[in-house]
Amino acid sequence: MEKTTAKPGDYVEIHLTKLIYEGVLLESPETEKSFVLLKLDSGYNMGFNRKDILKIVLLKKAIEGEKEKVEIKKNNEKKNIAMIITGGTIASVLDPKTGGVHSLQKPEDLFQFYPELFEKVNIVKVEIPFMKMSEDMDFKDWQKIAKVAVDLLNDNNIQGIIITHGTDTLHYTSAALSFFIRNLNKPVVLTYSQRSIDRASSDADLNLQCSALAAISDIAEVMLVGHASSNDDFCNAMPGTKVRKLHTSRRDAFKVVNDKPFAKIYPNKIDRISEWKIRNKNKAKTDSKFEEKIALVKIYPGQNPDILDYYAKKGYKGIVLELTGLGHAPTKRARNSWTLKLKEIQKKGIVVCAASQCIFGRVDPLVYSNGREILATGVIYLEDMLAETALVKLGWVLGHEDWKKNKKIVVEKMLENIAGEINKRLEE
Amino acid sequence: MEKTTAKPGDYVEIHLTKLIYEGVLLESPETEKSFVLLKLDSGYNMGFNRKDILKIVLLKKAIEGEKEKVEIKKNNEKKNIAMIITGGTIASVLDPKTGGVHSLQKPEDLFQFYPELFEKVNIVKVEIPFMKMSEDMDFKDWQKIAKVAVDLLNDNNIQGIIITHGTDTLHYTSAALSFFIRNLNKPVVLTYSQRSIDRASSDADLNLQCSALAAISDIAEVMLVGHASSNDDFCNAMPGTKVRKLHTSRRDAFKVVNDKPFAKIYPNKIDRISEWKIRNKNKAKTDSKFEEKIALVKIYPGQNPDILDYYAKKGYKGIVLELTGLGHAPTKRARNSWTLKLKEIQKKGIVVCAASQCIFGRVDPLVYSNGREILATGVIYLEDMLAETALVKLGWVLGHEDWKKNKKIVVEKMLENIAGEINKRLEE
Repeated sequence: MEKTTAKPGDYVEIHLTKLIYEGVLLESPETEKSFVLLKLDSGYNMGFNRKDILKIVLLKKAIEGEKEKVEIKKNNEKKNIAMIITGGTIASVLDPKTGGVHSLQKPEDLFQFYPELFEKVNIVKVEIPFMKMSEDMDFKDWQKIAKVAVDLLNDNNIQGIIITHGTDTLHYTSAALSFFIRNLNKPVVLTYSQRSIDRASSDADLNLQCSALAAISDIAEVMLVGHASSNDDFCNAMPGTKVRKLHTSRRDAFKVVNDKPFAKIYPNKIDRISEWKIRNKNKAKTDSKFEEKIALVKIYPGQNPDILDYYAKKGYKGIVLELTGLGHAPTKRARNSWTLKLKEIQKKGIVVCAASQCIFGRVDPLVYSNGREILATGVIYLEDMLAETALVKLGWVLGHEDWKKNKKIVVEKMLENIAGEINKRLEE
Repeated sequence: MEKTTAKPGDYVEIHLTKLIYEGVLLESPETEKSFVLLKLDSGYNMGFNRKDILKIVLLKKAIEGEKEKVEIKKNNEKKNIAMIITGGTIASVLDPKTGGVHSLQKPEDLFQFYPELFEKVNIVKVEIPFMKMSEDMDFKDWQKIAKVAVDLLNDNNIQGIIITHGTDTLHYTSAALSFFIRNLNKPVVLTYSQRSIDRASSDADLNLQCSALAAISDIAEVMLVGHASSNDDFCNAMPGTKVRKLHTSRRDAFKVVNDKPFAKIYPNKIDRISEWKIRNKNKAKTDSKFEEKIALVKIYPGQNPDILDYYAKKGYKGIVLELTGLGHAPTKRARNSWTLKLKEIQKKGIVVCAASQCIFGRVDPLVYSNGREILATGVIYLEDMLAETALVKLGWVLGHEDWKKNKKIVVEKMLENIAGEINKRLEE
């Protein structure tokens, strides 16, 4: 093997006789110094026998967080924004000792990774309510973010907020903030990265640059800003209640469902696509009461409806069913009918709502007799609302004791378009 | 109102002063003869006061099943196929008396609706194992279809099979047949319609014409043939294990996920897109043993893992989890950790598999420590397999007593690409 200047943590090419592998060089375990370990972009670690390697080519030096300190200078010609950092890949770096990733804990480290951000805006406040991968979050975390966000939104010195967040449940959080923050006055921009920021192909830079532009725009909405395609050219600003993670690993993992993006956002311009609420003088406030006893149940062929007994027994207050097609479950004509059980649990006071597992399109219980049979049990059909958004909204609506007492008000609230979650003008 | 020749059941335009509505004319209730009832394409019934109507324009006469008998002539220049009719919209017609739809029960009626089909092929056998909307089906129905299909596949007089089916769970059935029919020798074509066949815009005609072409082609695969777009120009032939209903109402509701269609099918030609197995001399057979005690559970933020106790208590043998992102559930760092409970139920012998609720992309538990934590409990990560296909496959694998006894064989089978359900070459 030729000599190399590459060190653990660097992004390299390993040349074998016929193949070339790309990834981050890891430290070899003490006991196996004859092996070179590489972390591939897929996340897999691969070992190479040193004698099979022709050469190692250095592609990108590791970012060495500790060595140089970034000086955060304020420039009066730029607008002021705040950041809320909550964890996720966008705040994770590779640990070259283990091959795993760990979370950045200090804002200075984040600033150092994203210098372009500072060319556009002053980041005058950074809040870190917690550091978590998003799959570990729940409604209490959404409440914390909402509280921190509202304080920042009511600070006259701040034009808008960027919230960085893991991707797994980002669309649940964006829906939650859409309901939890009332009288919204400024942009609330959620963003992410799909590739760890020390990989050659990280998507964090573009997402953050576009998020900065969104945060100082006049779009007073809770929005998710992220890659519009696999190209690093522009992002979409997507409504917080109408967005879903639809790919495990692509940079453009998030897509608007049953609606349009607010805008295309380039690093230097915003192209409007649809309507948005504009920046205003309201005083933002939180309304983040939440009923924890809610469930999302996806229906599948032959499913036993007894699962509903479990939820009734455990004191659940609301269930969102992901029904098939236009909003169907197995009916009286099936071996395992859901009809009676649905009636039963609603008699006990459990609120049952319906979204479609098709994801795209609108539920409509009136087309087929099976739909009418399920509708007649009292199920609330949620138009074109995403199941994930529906779950969050149901928890929020049932969190309000005065609404919860009255089924009629619950139905009204679930079918009222409160934060863009229902799109009456949905085109096929 | 001007006089009209339109009768209940006809497809008409109702002209008001400013608006025009299109739909199927219904019979007015005896007590409200001053109202004209119209069934809109959306499925909603709308009432118009007779005096507000300027005129009613007849667009398409109702199909009157009873009046003329179709004579089914065999033509030796055409190839012979068989049809299996199972119900669904493609076999439903509007009842102008109630405004609802009902299923066609006689093959002659179906023939009458689809004359184009007979221009391409001879339909020499029609089997109707049952008539159901697909949301009322379960594995016993899949077994019935498989049995009927295999008998037809081993009939030397038949070139291929068309199976008509409701859309709601069509992708579960196509996955089931992909596993249940072994040594496949001829095309098995599943098709559908999204619009009832008496509406002006029914999609059944094109789907059936393309299905006929597919059924006499050399594609010896279980495939779903349906509209490739909203235009009535061509269909896709989609792999039975890699397809999903992704829209509640569009004609092109079904999309291939994590793979490519086999081919584009026009009414008069087939354009190859990817590889397929070709027609052969095998003797097809059924292998449709199935373990009923399986469940699909979609994970959401904060979800309580106690739901797994319910399944353990009820004697379930297998669970497919729809995890977030690359394959995550709330871990030890979350308020409601799934880690211990997953270990617990797997110790009891329940097989747990993982697919992603992102739908598109591949699960990979090795990228983040949360994934590695869940993987370490023993969960089987199913690559890029659809959750729906995974559920069907798990039921099928566990249906085999000799495989079920040995967890190692179950893991092997779940990760073996048996019917195209795993795509190793998935491009991002």
